[in-house]
Amino acid sequence: MPSLDEDFLRHAIDLAKTARQHGEYPFGAILVVNQQLVHQTTDHCMSYADPTAHAEVTAIRNACKQLNTFQLEDCELYTSCEPCPMCLGAIYWSKIKKIYYACTRSDAASIGFSDDFIYNEIPKALHERTIPIEQVMWEEAMQVFKEWMLKPDRITY
Amino acid sequence: MPSLDEDFLRHAIDLAKTARQHGEYPFGAILVVNQQLVHQTTDHCMSYADPTAHAEVTAIRNACKQLNTFQLEDCELYTSCEPCPMCLGAIYWSKIKKIYYACTRSDAASIGFSDDFIYNEIPKALHERTIPIEQVMWEEAMQVFKEWMLKPDRITY
Repeated sequence: MPSLDEDFLRHAIDLAKTARQHGEYPFGAILVVNQQLVHQTTDHCMSYADPTAHAEVTAIRNACKQLNTFQLEDCELYTSCEPCPMCLGAIYWSKIKKIYYACTRSDAASIGFSDDFIYNEIPKALHERTIPIEQVMWEEAMQVFKEWMLKPDRITY
Repeated sequence: MPSLDEDFLRHAIDLAKTARQHGEYPFGAILVVNQQLVHQTTDHCMSYADPTAHAEVTAIRNACKQLNTFQLEDCELYTSCEPCPMCLGAIYWSKIKKIYYACTRSDAASIGFSDDFIYNEIPKALHERTIPIEQVMWEEAMQVFKEWMLKPDRITY
């Protein structure tokens, strides 16, 4: 069973502090397997000029590379702030088994980040969202999905 | 004003088909500025061994690199399937201005992908989610956020 190790979260918070000092956004994340640190990272949005390079997404991407795996079922995530919806999605896709976090989406909002706003957008009906979204050409695209289902060696996740 | 160009979506669907043929998941995405194609890509989860390398996230990451920008306010996204919550989060963070899609999250579920499941998890109360999540050490982490607020040149997004 996973059990909280506060030292890992303290380390993630230290990474957030380091990030701030180095001109990155103030977030840090650590992935742990069997109480051993696998990967530690800060947010890298600024230095990578990549709006998807949050600490959690970057940690998942790098840990998969490092462990030569596509799924992180044995990993626990320690993150200085509650994962945003993008990172939470990445956590579900990578199948991380437990998340420990410190600050909340509201705390992130209080220092100017959009985490809470995006959490509120996701469950909305599509026509009520801020970013317009429109569906077209369903039949053509479904044909590709139907062909996928005919693939005998298909693996989903 | 943005206006739908079906050729772009047809091309994204063709990319999804190509992806399937090359052993990737059957999804394709295109980013367009002023009716000009900026970046086209398929899902790359398999070849990158990266569970975050969906077509949309990969397109955003690469287009930012290509355009040397951190934000894609002028871009429209054409994607063969409704973006999953991770990709939708990335779309909000990158500030894409409009999304066109063909298949839905339910269609993705019907061929074995977790998009719809993850959409249902995101708005849940934290203790009701499938992946356990626990908050600890709030005060220590908030200290870093408070220090961030003292940074005169801070930029958020």
